[in-house]
Amino acid sequence: MSKHVFDQAIALTATGEGTYSGATSPAYANMIGPYGGITAATVLHGVMQHPALLGEPLSLTVNYAAALNDGPFDLRVEPVRTNRSTQHWVMSITQPDAAGAVQTVVTASAVTAARRDTWSVDDEPMPAVPSPGDVPPYAVPSPVEWIKRYEMRPIEGAIPSQWDGSGSHSLSRLWMRDTPARAIDLCSLAALADVFFPRIWLRRATWVPAGTVSMTVYFHAGSAQLAECGHGWVLGQARAQAFRNGFFDQTAQLWSESGHLLATSHQVVYYKE
Amino acid sequence: MSKHVFDQAIALTATGEGTYSGATSPAYANMIGPYGGITAATVLHGVMQHPALLGEPLSLTVNYAAALNDGPFDLRVEPVRTNRSTQHWVMSITQPDAAGAVQTVVTASAVTAARRDTWSVDDEPMPAVPSPGDVPPYAVPSPVEWIKRYEMRPIEGAIPSQWDGSGSHSLSRLWMRDTPARAIDLCSLAALADVFFPRIWLRRATWVPAGTVSMTVYFHAGSAQLAECGHGWVLGQARAQAFRNGFFDQTAQLWSESGHLLATSHQVVYYKE
Repeated sequence: MSKHVFDQAIALTATGEGTYSGATSPAYANMIGPYGGITAATVLHGVMQHPALLGEPLSLTVNYAAALNDGPFDLRVEPVRTNRSTQHWVMSITQPDAAGAVQTVVTASAVTAARRDTWSVDDEPMPAVPSPGDVPPYAVPSPVEWIKRYEMRPIEGAIPSQWDGSGSHSLSRLWMRDTPARAIDLCSLAALADVFFPRIWLRRATWVPAGTVSMTVYFHAGSAQLAECGHGWVLGQARAQAFRNGFFDQTAQLWSESGHLLATSHQVVYYKE
Repeated sequence: MSKHVFDQAIALTATGEGTYSGATSPAYANMIGPYGGITAATVLHGVMQHPALLGEPLSLTVNYAAALNDGPFDLRVEPVRTNRSTQHWVMSITQPDAAGAVQTVVTASAVTAARRDTWSVDDEPMPAVPSPGDVPPYAVPSPVEWIKRYEMRPIEGAIPSQWDGSGSHSLSRLWMRDTPARAIDLCSLAALADVFFPRIWLRRATWVPAGTVSMTVYFHAGSAQLAECGHGWVLGQARAQAFRNGFFDQTAQLWSESGHLLATSHQVVYYKE
């Protein structure tokens, strides 16, 4: 059986202690460079493959310093501090520039942790939404390749069909999953956290150039809980809090179909005007 | 005129290109090590003093790898990528351990950016709250020193006065500012983002050991807008989204008294049981 396209895209080859080589995947191409979510998943994949790994991902921050060029890249993954139950990681992706000089294109950090049985509760309940089977799929032709790698069923706050400046809010809710179907794991959850189109497009019903500058994901679910989700849907919700002087933020939640909060995420996004 | 205690606490001495020495301040001591907010402000201060700085802080992520020991520390601040309008930074704090070996105690990253006049709007309006003059000050004796460095006026979700397990939500709102009064700037705003006591205490009305593992701050205001706030109050709001297996997240907003969203912040926090 051939590998899922997602696993092909995040594949890494170890080249030394904590160093890997990878390559951008045309299947996840965005307008310029790859989809930010696949880059986040790839960086996390490097952490999860590291022989010194303790526990499972708790937080991941990815700073998009420059668009990756199509082609190979080098990933460096370093456990800088190992405590009894947490481990701190620093990562970076580099590529040679046109003159052959090595350039940093991504910086990132992560915390992994041994999770324990404790008192637990979700304080952000899943909103009441129709089930995935009752929501028609997103049917707009995609201008970029990566969108075709996700099945999306927008419940509210779909991408505007008319760019008429009529926007009044920035809240989107949608069911989403990989296509073809693939069991959810920590890497694919990290990628899903970046699925939401730029909030500025919704808020203004106006198209302007925009791109993620930095994204953080907090993982509430571990691999065991994700395994229970199987090929299931994830409910994504995203909303901006402020648009100011060329940058806006986004706060996002991702729930399993059974209503468990799997991850929360935040990002800050550049917009042109 | 002697320096404000906050400025004393975040003071750094350049020791080389992008390297600084600093020292923990007893005035901002927490139970173990310094207040996380003062560490975040110190790391940001290093970025802002760097001669290569482009623009102003847009995002800051601080990972608390270990409690700082009381005493001196070394801060390293490196601009790893400079674009036309954004700049990416990687930072770390190190201290020698008991055996004299250099240990990483903090990792951090930041993006600074040249902000431009663009279409702007706040999508998270300031909640309707009484003005600071109408809210009594927080009057509980503080078990730790750093809390005395802030004037706090809790509006709702104050720290429980009875640890009776009666908690039902995790939302706090309070007016807050430095004491003695100090004009708000980007460093003090970063520190304010960490003022909120652990959400688990409120949600459970039960005291358990807890500590921030990673915090991210997105700055919506620049220094010019902050200057307009003068010595004014900041309205802070914080809420958890999920408590699970020993860690919870916190999402927070900080508004000026005039209702502008100055910063949004998120953190993931360890709790013992």
